[in-house]
Amino acid sequence: MKAPDTLTAGGITAPRGYRAAGIAAGIKAAGRDLALIVSDRPATVAGVFTTNRVVAAPVRLGRERLAGGGGARAIVVNSGCANACTGPEGLEDARRTARLAAALLRVEEREVLVCSTGTIGKPLPMAAIEAGLPRAMAALDPTGGADAAAAILTTDTRPKQAAVALPVAGRTVTVGGMAKGAGMIHPRMATLLVFLTTDAAVAAGDLQACLRAAVDRSFNRMSVDGDRSTNDTALFLANGAAELPALGPGHAAWRGFRGAVGAVCANLARQIVQDGEGATKLVTVAVRGAPGRRAAERVARAVANSLLVKTSWFGADPNWGRVLCAAGYSGAALDPDRVEIAYDGIVAVRDGRPANAPPDALRAVLSRPEFRLEIDLHLGRSTYTMTACDCSPDYVRINAAYMT
Amino acid sequence: MKAPDTLTAGGITAPRGYRAAGIAAGIKAAGRDLALIVSDRPATVAGVFTTNRVVAAPVRLGRERLAGGGGARAIVVNSGCANACTGPEGLEDARRTARLAAALLRVEEREVLVCSTGTIGKPLPMAAIEAGLPRAMAALDPTGGADAAAAILTTDTRPKQAAVALPVAGRTVTVGGMAKGAGMIHPRMATLLVFLTTDAAVAAGDLQACLRAAVDRSFNRMSVDGDRSTNDTALFLANGAAELPALGPGHAAWRGFRGAVGAVCANLARQIVQDGEGATKLVTVAVRGAPGRRAAERVARAVANSLLVKTSWFGADPNWGRVLCAAGYSGAALDPDRVEIAYDGIVAVRDGRPANAPPDALRAVLSRPEFRLEIDLHLGRSTYTMTACDCSPDYVRINAAYMT
Repeated sequence: MKAPDTLTAGGITAPRGYRAAGIAAGIKAAGRDLALIVSDRPATVAGVFTTNRVVAAPVRLGRERLAGGGGARAIVVNSGCANACTGPEGLEDARRTARLAAALLRVEEREVLVCSTGTIGKPLPMAAIEAGLPRAMAALDPTGGADAAAAILTTDTRPKQAAVALPVAGRTVTVGGMAKGAGMIHPRMATLLVFLTTDAAVAAGDLQACLRAAVDRSFNRMSVDGDRSTNDTALFLANGAAELPALGPGHAAWRGFRGAVGAVCANLARQIVQDGEGATKLVTVAVRGAPGRRAAERVARAVANSLLVKTSWFGADPNWGRVLCAAGYSGAALDPDRVEIAYDGIVAVRDGRPANAPPDALRAVLSRPEFRLEIDLHLGRSTYTMTACDCSPDYVRINAAYMT
Repeated sequence: MKAPDTLTAGGITAPRGYRAAGIAAGIKAAGRDLALIVSDRPATVAGVFTTNRVVAAPVRLGRERLAGGGGARAIVVNSGCANACTGPEGLEDARRTARLAAALLRVEEREVLVCSTGTIGKPLPMAAIEAGLPRAMAALDPTGGADAAAAILTTDTRPKQAAVALPVAGRTVTVGGMAKGAGMIHPRMATLLVFLTTDAAVAAGDLQACLRAAVDRSFNRMSVDGDRSTNDTALFLANGAAELPALGPGHAAWRGFRGAVGAVCANLARQIVQDGEGATKLVTVAVRGAPGRRAAERVARAVANSLLVKTSWFGADPNWGRVLCAAGYSGAALDPDRVEIAYDGIVAVRDGRPANAPPDALRAVLSRPEFRLEIDLHLGRSTYTMTACDCSPDYVRINAAYMT
């Protein structure tokens, strides 16, 4: 998960040809809550949406837009209201938001995407959005990424941005991104929003494949189940402002480009886990020696999502029994008598039994702000790695107090 | 879940022909930790064990005993050590415990079952058990059920007993039980132990079917995933001390007997949820109108197990958005625009949208120590009901501090 050396400053406005703004429109009680991202030229667009059967209005609209093909010019994002469970009126509010932004920006309505995050079941405050959009447009700036990143937050304690610059044919292609999301434990509804931009030119289909792969390897490997909220959305714009021939699978730089997108996503995912609600520790759960990739994933997910494991991390307790037990109920085929468990290289369990590691040494590892938990099933060669955080009493406090 | 009128005092020694004891053997730092249950005559036995692939030594032994057929005379239960992940030595320790008890009680070794609960990965302290068993035998008493119920606890704050008396052919058949288990949220390893006794005579196969059905309708419907720990075990002894012909499917009283077993299990399950780690509220999650029983169960489990839903209950927050979202990711087919959600009869959501219930009234329901959450999918006639508790910061504190 270490960020590559090419990691650069900024976020969605790091690539050329993008402007952004984030203003306080009065949707939340306080703070920035309305973000606008604009590409100065038509961009291709890719999107990955929630798999929840209950989907918010902006997700319905986004799916419709992407299915219709064509490019995108702008994205409007509001925090403070999810516009979910709001019926046909909610869908009309999402459409009207896009229409208003399109009129202001003098682009086609179908070129504007909208995203919402916040409480469920309340109508989008259209008066605030209508009054806020012209102000957001006036605030658009080629360095506005940070303001936009601040305006999309809910329970997050800090904005999350990342960017990677990549040399291509004597020029520089940049991939930028921002994200929000802080619910960490089986949240499935602590909305994950991810916005990526690039100044490369990429055909929509290639952009979609690239986004899907990067999301699968980053956000889908946090213990967030990010694909399950009513509003989860990842959008990727490619506007070609770098003035290079289109990148794609046939291009020498395609692999590097995909790596850059992956690095931005991995970095954002890591920031999300580190900012997990009430989180005090970041834990890499690495499974290896599994008989198949699906088995490896099952074990990693069961361990990374186990509330008992997470609470023991918070307590700096090397409770490998809970780890082994979670592996046992994961559904993966395993032989308990072969399992090996190590914390930052200190083997706690070998052949399914205590390896007599010094308890103080184990406890020292679990007291670190970041450590690696390795689980070797010794049954094959498949691996799967996830990023997780611990669970503290603050997680409960935050979620008991976050009002409808 | 209301207990029937026939609910009577006592637990496993309420039926005739049983004696029990619970003593402090020094396995835990303090308190009773060794229980002994003895039937004065040979009893038939039924058992339901964990489905976890990592199983504790006593579960391996118990499965072996039950597969071998034959009856049972005694059960030894210790708290403070799970005897799990202890390899061949652990299995030998479990066997030796049974052998020691059998010698003291002058019964066959195969007639003694053992159960353990506590921390994983530590060897069973055989010196303490060897010294404790004679003392437990000396303490055996026909009213010893309460002492035994106290000796099987770990993080539980109180013992759990229940008994039902049933008139059969001019006599009385009694079903008694005790249980431990307090982890409430996806614990899957907060061991659930259940012990049932009856003075009816019941053939082993019938007893097994009866136990399986009762467990499925009670402990498997708590938000505990009770069937997943390394040590989960439910055992049922039937010793015929009521001196009646054997009960079974052909007998007029069979239905009543099954009802009594069900009532004891339901009552114990309710006590377990009420004693959930850090729990402050008991919530009945009732799903109806589902297109099939599996869909109803999926929705009920997703809602009852959702940490975000549980924390909102703790905060007395009528956050039906989280309920609807959990239903959405449950995997069940549902039409969000038809869903109805009510709290103790107050409809909060109709047709998937806010029903404008007075927020104060909803908040008052969620402030009750017990309330009913009804979710009607309006798609069919299937139902499923679960018992759940809320999640408080104390849950995390308890599990962060519970040491390996």
